[in-house]
Amino acid sequence: MDPLRTAKVRKIFDNANFVRDLGIELTRVQEDGCETRLQLAARHLQQHGLVHAGVLATMADHTGGCAARGAVGLDQEVLTVEFKINFLRPAGGDRLRCWGHVLRAGKTLAVAESEIFAAASSDEKLVAKATITLALVPEQ
Amino acid sequence: MDPLRTAKVRKIFDNANFVRDLGIELTRVQEDGCETRLQLAARHLQQHGLVHAGVLATMADHTGGCAARGAVGLDQEVLTVEFKINFLRPAGGDRLRCWGHVLRAGKTLAVAESEIFAAASSDEKLVAKATITLALVPEQ
Amino acid sequence: MDPLRTAKVRKIFDNANFVRDLGIELTRVQEDGCETRLQLAARHLQQHGLVHAGVLATMADHTGGCAARGAVGLDQEVLTVEFKINFLRPAGGDRLRCWGHVLRAGKTLAVAESEIFAAASSDEKLVAKATITLALVPEQ
Amino acid sequence: MDPLRTAKVRKIFDNANFVRDLGIELTRVQEDGCETRLQLAARHLQQHGLVHAGVLATMADHTGGCAARGAVGLDQEVLTVEFKINFLRPAGGDRLRCWGHVLRAGKTLAVAESEIFAAASSDEKLVAKATITLALVPEQ
Repeated sequence: MDPLRTAKVRKIFDNANFVRDLGIELTRVQEDGCETRLQLAARHLQQHGLVHAGVLATMADHTGGCAARGAVGLDQEVLTVEFKINFLRPAGGDRLRCWGHVLRAGKTLAVAESEIFAAASSDEKLVAKATITLALVPEQ
Repeated sequence: MDPLRTAKVRKIFDNANFVRDLGIELTRVQEDGCETRLQLAARHLQQHGLVHAGVLATMADHTGGCAARGAVGLDQEVLTVEFKINFLRPAGGDRLRCWGHVLRAGKTLAVAESEIFAAASSDEKLVAKATITLALVPEQ
Repeated sequence: MDPLRTAKVRKIFDNANFVRDLGIELTRVQEDGCETRLQLAARHLQQHGLVHAGVLATMADHTGGCAARGAVGLDQEVLTVEFKINFLRPAGGDRLRCWGHVLRAGKTLAVAESEIFAAASSDEKLVAKATITLALVPEQ
Repeated sequence: MDPLRTAKVRKIFDNANFVRDLGIELTRVQEDGCETRLQLAARHLQQHGLVHAGVLATMADHTGGCAARGAVGLDQEVLTVEFKINFLRPAGGDRLRCWGHVLRAGKTLAVAESEIFAAASSDEKLVAKATITLALVPEQ
């Protein structure tokens, strides 16, 4: 991928306090999508010891946003308009991996999808899937 | 509201690490819904200095879950199956307030709604609205 | 409401074949929302004798679209970007009533909500609720 | 696929008035999903001459439901709890094709996805994608 484009995607990560604070890392930026990873800790859990839906939602939203940023014009930013996320299995284990990719990038809107996999040892399972609608706005 | 029921709702807050870590507080537990509040800090923001969609999603999900917990049987827990959230206005300011209430509580599923308001001074604006589907499971 | 604006909303109904074919009628156009009604027939049902989810989705989408059309500029049209609908109770009875209203109308997007009530005799119950995101486009 | 299972899926089509009335046909039933097709006519359109969102929603919901029915126990039926659908491109042309498949089938809930493609001549484009949550209920 074009280094300038990759840099634009990375900037979304480096400048997003909440995502950095949670410990989510951007591990791959490609033409066809982005990958993020999160090492799970006690702070990410909810009342039953599972990963909180809000952690999964944050990861899905931000990774889908990165994929969309990489797919739109260099001088365009993306802002989440809405998203929907389904929690498919209880999310536990040591770490999460998220893959975000773009379903459609138009002139004013983009639609991305994110899939989150949880892993304990070598076994990875799909635990959540989200669809994200984003608005394209001129870069400031 | 019945104190036992209120205690069940409060327990969801006290035992959810992620929500406590973010600083979200449960400020009201009523028959007809729950209210939470969050004092905003730099760590809650995204790359444009607005509240991150993941913070709003976490607040909406958890507050709706509390409202659902208060509406179902005393011996039932609730687990988020899926949610959808629309971001209606850029969320900034000093603090957020969320009101969650139940649209429908059945035997195996409940549906809740959450509205999030952002405030700078005395002026409060609706910044996000979510619909949450929850599964009812026997309390462990 | 301004008659010109009302006419614009009515046009969405009169020119939408699918909605007319289903028998959905526009029964109220107000500043704060729109109401539609549908007399149920055998053709609207699914395999268990309940109203098909697609009928409810069509009604929710179109009524929310009408509400959005009434809330945006006179020279703007609305196109559904996405919607989400929850089915809260089995929908049966003689007729449906839908109320659509606008949560937020911005410069390029609007968000509407629709509630559908089913009635047998005088008793009306909320059977579905939808959130609809619409794009504003210049009228052709 | 097991003929008994295929018969159960076909029954959802043959007994659903609304889907038959619209002209949607079940063209493939496989282990990994279901395919439906619709020959477009004037009655399926909205005010701009495009396929109405409600037609796409009906097709997505029902095809996803068929895929879920094929994936759950022989003595279980499926009922749509909620769905979300994104409209990715204006849907026109002569015909639609929908592919529905299951993301996850659990004990009480299933989650399916449906993709709808529109075609004029030999060129097919993805025009809508939906995520559907279904409840599993004992067959009556």
